[in-house]
Amino acid sequence: MFETAEIGNRLSKRAFEREAPKVRTALLDAQRRLATSPLAVVILIGGVEGAGKAETVNLLLEWLDARGVEVHAMWDLSDEERERPPMWRFWRVLPPQGRVGIFFGSWYTAPIIDRVFRSAGATELDQALDRIIDFERMLAAENVLLAKFWLHLSKDVQRKRLKELEADPRQSWRVTKQDWKFFKKYDRFRQISEHALRRTSTAEAPWNIVEASDARYRSLAVPQTLLRMLGERLDRVQRAVRSKPVPDRPKPKPVNVISQLDLSKRVADGEYRRDLLKYMGRINLLSRRLRERRRSLLLLFEGPDAAGKGGAIRRLISAVDARNYQVQSVAAPTDEERVRPYLWRFWRSLPRLGRITIYDRSWYGRVLVERIEGFCRAEDWQRAYTEINAFEEQLAEFGIILLKFWMMISPAEQLRRFKDREVTPYKQYKLTEEDWRNREKWDAYVAAACEMIERTSTESAPWVLVEADDKNHARIKVMKSVHRALKSALRA
Amino acid sequence: MFETAEIGNRLSKRAFEREAPKVRTALLDAQRRLATSPLAVVILIGGVEGAGKAETVNLLLEWLDARGVEVHAMWDLSDEERERPPMWRFWRVLPPQGRVGIFFGSWYTAPIIDRVFRSAGATELDQALDRIIDFERMLAAENVLLAKFWLHLSKDVQRKRLKELEADPRQSWRVTKQDWKFFKKYDRFRQISEHALRRTSTAEAPWNIVEASDARYRSLAVPQTLLRMLGERLDRVQRAVRSKPVPDRPKPKPVNVISQLDLSKRVADGEYRRDLLKYMGRINLLSRRLRERRRSLLLLFEGPDAAGKGGAIRRLISAVDARNYQVQSVAAPTDEERVRPYLWRFWRSLPRLGRITIYDRSWYGRVLVERIEGFCRAEDWQRAYTEINAFEEQLAEFGIILLKFWMMISPAEQLRRFKDREVTPYKQYKLTEEDWRNREKWDAYVAAACEMIERTSTESAPWVLVEADDKNHARIKVMKSVHRALKSALRA
Repeated sequence: MFETAEIGNRLSKRAFEREAPKVRTALLDAQRRLATSPLAVVILIGGVEGAGKAETVNLLLEWLDARGVEVHAMWDLSDEERERPPMWRFWRVLPPQGRVGIFFGSWYTAPIIDRVFRSAGATELDQALDRIIDFERMLAAENVLLAKFWLHLSKDVQRKRLKELEADPRQSWRVTKQDWKFFKKYDRFRQISEHALRRTSTAEAPWNIVEASDARYRSLAVPQTLLRMLGERLDRVQRAVRSKPVPDRPKPKPVNVISQLDLSKRVADGEYRRDLLKYMGRINLLSRRLRERRRSLLLLFEGPDAAGKGGAIRRLISAVDARNYQVQSVAAPTDEERVRPYLWRFWRSLPRLGRITIYDRSWYGRVLVERIEGFCRAEDWQRAYTEINAFEEQLAEFGIILLKFWMMISPAEQLRRFKDREVTPYKQYKLTEEDWRNREKWDAYVAAACEMIERTSTESAPWVLVEADDKNHARIKVMKSVHRALKSALRA
Repeated sequence: MFETAEIGNRLSKRAFEREAPKVRTALLDAQRRLATSPLAVVILIGGVEGAGKAETVNLLLEWLDARGVEVHAMWDLSDEERERPPMWRFWRVLPPQGRVGIFFGSWYTAPIIDRVFRSAGATELDQALDRIIDFERMLAAENVLLAKFWLHLSKDVQRKRLKELEADPRQSWRVTKQDWKFFKKYDRFRQISEHALRRTSTAEAPWNIVEASDARYRSLAVPQTLLRMLGERLDRVQRAVRSKPVPDRPKPKPVNVISQLDLSKRVADGEYRRDLLKYMGRINLLSRRLRERRRSLLLLFEGPDAAGKGGAIRRLISAVDARNYQVQSVAAPTDEERVRPYLWRFWRSLPRLGRITIYDRSWYGRVLVERIEGFCRAEDWQRAYTEINAFEEQLAEFGIILLKFWMMISPAEQLRRFKDREVTPYKQYKLTEEDWRNREKWDAYVAAACEMIERTSTESAPWVLVEADDKNHARIKVMKSVHRALKSALRA
């Protein structure tokens, strides 16, 4: 596929000077349209050393209005990055709507380099590429335009380029040992990147291969291509008759995983107190090993209002060192979160290795409240199952022990708790009009939860269904499950 | 001062159960008022080991609506934290308006511990405390309520507490070797923390010392105090007749640092091209040493519209490895930034060690455009000089090489450039109505800039005034200054 970028494309100075101002002007116009659109732009600049990647980034910075652009050089990892799944560093800097992020080095760099230097096998590379395809598909669905550029030089041209630079005393600093080290691997690098590019040139995010031997040709080709992609996508966004979000009220099956729960399960007070202390001690000891084993514990709680999520969480955290856990209460997203892909806010708050993080409500809001209340469009919550599974797979692979609790109560028990909240002054804040309204959608929530459990309960991230009509039973079941998960993960 | 917390305060179970629900209810009411107020709350929980700090944090999480609370355990430093000035880790997690941040461990921890274990002298401690006072004063001015709690135990009670816990097989895990190590230093720790607390008990942020030997007394005293502080502060915020922001249009002195610049300075094209390449090479070589020396370079550019900031920046960055620099274009703050103290957005984006960061406009906006346009109140920009100096002092002390450029042009040259922008399609976006309006405030900007330069040019963070009517001269002067600064900092 690189042959098309070895045909000697050149541009005369005159042609460049005639075309450049037009492209600059048009690019600025497009950027102005972008600024008020729901679109974000991610530009990846990849390719061989000496092909002018840095110059291309500088040129884009010059031709675009730099105030709307951020450049992210994906240089070596910090330990905060190393202590999170590999994609974290890219998620954390995704540009918001209306803005452009230029990535110098990207999620392709590590898979390709690992394969070139043989620290990864062919299967691993393909697995990594498949994930990238999923990730880029998600970006496309979330209105992120991905413009991927690969600057190509033939072997001869690259050798010549490096030698020329080295020979010029004023430019020799541009060539490093690293460049020659990479040059030796030219053929292998070419073969592997060709494979990677072919596989990841999808309809949503095709690669643009740019012949880079002539600086003027390259300097015009990149912005021109960007301009075309941006224009087309902006047109599409404007024309698109986007389906309106509508509430979805699924009906539960007569017999389902939730209806089958035996909510009458009870634990007597004496047994509760004894077991609680027992598990607190055990969890505490195990939790101290998380750091040394470079593991984390991530727990999330979902369930109807008043199901006892908060109470269970408080029992848990009193067992562990307060310096070592964090409770994330998930409420409405902030403005900065709203203008980025859905999962951004959760990636953003992902804890470092060694910690315990507890989510009181979570990313599953997408397929529960957002689905039922119509806060997002049907296609958005429908693709969420896949995206969430991919997300949790990354967490699990990274060594995060993940447990998901569905706390279930009966409508009658909920009513009793609501009434109790009404009469207890310091509990009143927990009860809102919305809680009463949600009761009316009980069946829809049960049905959505069943579908969620069915589609997202995996071996590495299982759902634990907790019968919660009796608080004693619910809390002990949570403690027991956490203990068991820690034990099996840490003693393994 | 700790004697008042060794008088044996106790609370009966009955009294606690009578009072607790009242305090909980009132606290929730106050939190609801807080949620819609311009106030943020920072709670510091400090004190001796075994005094129940973790239990207090858990209690607050239980009594407050946890959805509006974040707990930050200031555990060991990550390398991203280590690669920024010490206060960065606190800045990055400051709560926004309407929310509560509980800090478990705080900016007091390191200074006190360093002094207890003698890695810092008495003068260093006092210097650290003085900075804390300034920081906390800033927080108060920025509508952050600071509630500082110190949980105290007498030596006898602490020994007894640790032994009791150790003897109980179900609780012994709560006592670590670290606890006993600290206990041995009890007297010294007491003396030093007493000194620190006395010195930092200011009108804006007094310490609340809580006798912690009785769990019930402690568990009521902390929320009660918080409730009182929060109530008073919310009342004050509501009552306060805050002065309206008004534009301030200072007049420049007839002779000043800016009027004295010789804007006719020129550099011929040939000399320009030669010098540019020379300094590019030199800056490139020096910039590579930043990482190994654990230094950073931070440059900021201010000046009238069309003074050539962007052009100078682009020349600079083409000299350095694109993976190693970042350009921050400072525009309007985001919503998340608007609800936190002014400098938060700049702390937030502070680069790691070893990097080059270039600000196109900067935190000086506060004393330039915000002052002149009336975007903030007079007391806000007036205190900004001190806050900025304190900020830059922290940067410099941390090894960041800081250079500030004021690019100056004449009104006539600006007019010429505006007209040029009008006729060049790809430059038109740079020219807005506002630019024309700003011309009318020329004198006010010059006067504000003079005051800014006078009050914020320090040895470690000097202003470089650049005569910029001739672009060649301006760019070379910038390159030269950067080269000189790098050379003297890195060869030292």
